[in-house]
Amino acid sequence: MSKKIGKQTVSFKNPPSINAYSSIVGPKEGIGPLKRYFDIIIEDEMLGEKSWEKAESKLLQDNLDNLLKKANKAYSDIDYLLMGDLLNQCIASNYAARNSRIPFFGLYGACSTMAESMSLGSMLVEGGFAKSVVCITSSHFCAAEKQYRFPLEFGTQRTPTAQWTITGSGGVLIEKEGIGPYIKNITTGKIIDMGIKDANNMGAAMAPAASDTILNHFRDLGLKEDYYDMIVTGDLGKIGSTACRDILKNEGLNIGDRLKDCGMLIFDIIDSDTHAGGSGCGCSASVLASYILEEMSKSSINRILFVATGALMSPEMLLQGESIPAIAHAVTIENSI
Amino acid sequence: MSKKIGKQTVSFKNPPSINAYSSIVGPKEGIGPLKRYFDIIIEDEMLGEKSWEKAESKLLQDNLDNLLKKANKAYSDIDYLLMGDLLNQCIASNYAARNSRIPFFGLYGACSTMAESMSLGSMLVEGGFAKSVVCITSSHFCAAEKQYRFPLEFGTQRTPTAQWTITGSGGVLIEKEGIGPYIKNITTGKIIDMGIKDANNMGAAMAPAASDTILNHFRDLGLKEDYYDMIVTGDLGKIGSTACRDILKNEGLNIGDRLKDCGMLIFDIIDSDTHAGGSGCGCSASVLASYILEEMSKSSINRILFVATGALMSPEMLLQGESIPAIAHAVTIENSI
Repeated sequence: MSKKIGKQTVSFKNPPSINAYSSIVGPKEGIGPLKRYFDIIIEDEMLGEKSWEKAESKLLQDNLDNLLKKANKAYSDIDYLLMGDLLNQCIASNYAARNSRIPFFGLYGACSTMAESMSLGSMLVEGGFAKSVVCITSSHFCAAEKQYRFPLEFGTQRTPTAQWTITGSGGVLIEKEGIGPYIKNITTGKIIDMGIKDANNMGAAMAPAASDTILNHFRDLGLKEDYYDMIVTGDLGKIGSTACRDILKNEGLNIGDRLKDCGMLIFDIIDSDTHAGGSGCGCSASVLASYILEEMSKSSINRILFVATGALMSPEMLLQGESIPAIAHAVTIENSI
Repeated sequence: MSKKIGKQTVSFKNPPSINAYSSIVGPKEGIGPLKRYFDIIIEDEMLGEKSWEKAESKLLQDNLDNLLKKANKAYSDIDYLLMGDLLNQCIASNYAARNSRIPFFGLYGACSTMAESMSLGSMLVEGGFAKSVVCITSSHFCAAEKQYRFPLEFGTQRTPTAQWTITGSGGVLIEKEGIGPYIKNITTGKIIDMGIKDANNMGAAMAPAASDTILNHFRDLGLKEDYYDMIVTGDLGKIGSTACRDILKNEGLNIGDRLKDCGMLIFDIIDSDTHAGGSGCGCSASVLASYILEEMSKSSINRILFVATGALMSPEMLLQGESIPAIAHAVTIENSI
């Protein structure tokens, strides 16, 4: 039997295996430091569609299809599809999945959705309710800017603390049987709101949630500071990542350079002019489903904690003067069982 | 071990128990046919807040608190909170949960969210990952009209096929141990899009998804037409409910008057001038967590299939000429184990 440890952590007795992964990104991400790891780099950000929303949905659908192709699976082999994105009513997901006929659970955790989907997906597999589940998310810079901030045509100047929503999708196939890497533990986040109201500084809003989840993960499992080769948040960016490291240090958990951030890995943040780094449901997902899992397959990394973070506000709530609630979900991925 | 049966159904070996339920509704719902069943009927649709969005979030938070009060539980007794609503970025849920410190999974399944949350929640409990989970959703007429259709002040005339988003929330506490009623099976929906584009006729858009899930549920489990005392959809309304009954009959499943709809139960649709009936995440949730579960506690109903249906479009996608993808999730609730 798997064990619930502490308030937030589940440790799996029979850790599910990540048997395939796939990533797709836009042209800007495709010239970044991780370019050689992505499965598909698109040239046309519209993907032949007539709107940004439809383009994001196509991006997600293409990645789902590529994932299943890499895994040599058909839609009908998949028990559950756990999916989410940033668009209102999660339309990128809902329209991408409508031809698949896979039993579907729609999720919304903002940029934490990839870890949320993997947490739920692992429990469904380990609990014996599914043999194969797909966990997949997306974001699209242009669709996100239009919905959350300003029309691109407006050409607004971005603040130094702003993050850049990446155009991309990442997905994984989680199964009962396999040769790993394995999902060994999950730590499910609580919503934490420290009163930050600046939508252009989401890193600061999410850092307390990320550090709370990481701290509870280490405490629940009694892990040492050097247990993981990498603790990878997604996506705190430069500001949030520094804040997270400082909060952890103040709490006595000194993980130092082991703490990386998907938003800072995907872009050279100076060259790309992305300011604080990348963000979006698709950022942590595409970095996990490319660079991280490929390096794990070569055993250059063997133990990671994947901590996807989400800012759970809406533009409407910020206009009404509200602060930004945030959440972070953590997933342990290890090469050995 | 629980069994996956067919493509979409899980039958629980140790059915989780619904140990508490709570409902809260607005003044219009509070004078309807189910008025004596609701825990709380609010008089002020603003709930003392300054916006419809904040009012919905307060409604949901009040219902969460009332549910835990009825169950004699504290926030810290709950392993997971599974929550969702209709607002962009699910803000009613995200803001309602931010003070609870309960590990949180945000869901988006439009008006199917209550059954989605109960499906996932039951698996988490039966799989041994949680002892106590809360599944809870909300909707608010004024917040939904503002977001999906027209500002209330515009005074637009509604079409005869339109449904009325209810102001309300329903929640249940699902636990490993208890005296029932029990969640015995779940059938998880696939997204189905039959090309309907009329946002004022969501019943028609959702009926194919509802009938597909009901048919597969009966086929997967080999049930007879008269197995359930009630098959209750939420929310197809008058148009969708008739369409669903007809589709099922054409497919050889003649459930006749056993098919009810939460949107038609909550309002006297002539007197209330709600046209095709109620809808919204909070409609099926509040009808389940009042009338249905109370009548089950008196054993006047003993076996039900709760089928919550969701229309997964966004206003943006309809403006772009897209059709409405829909989904339905089914949950078997029975008094005997």
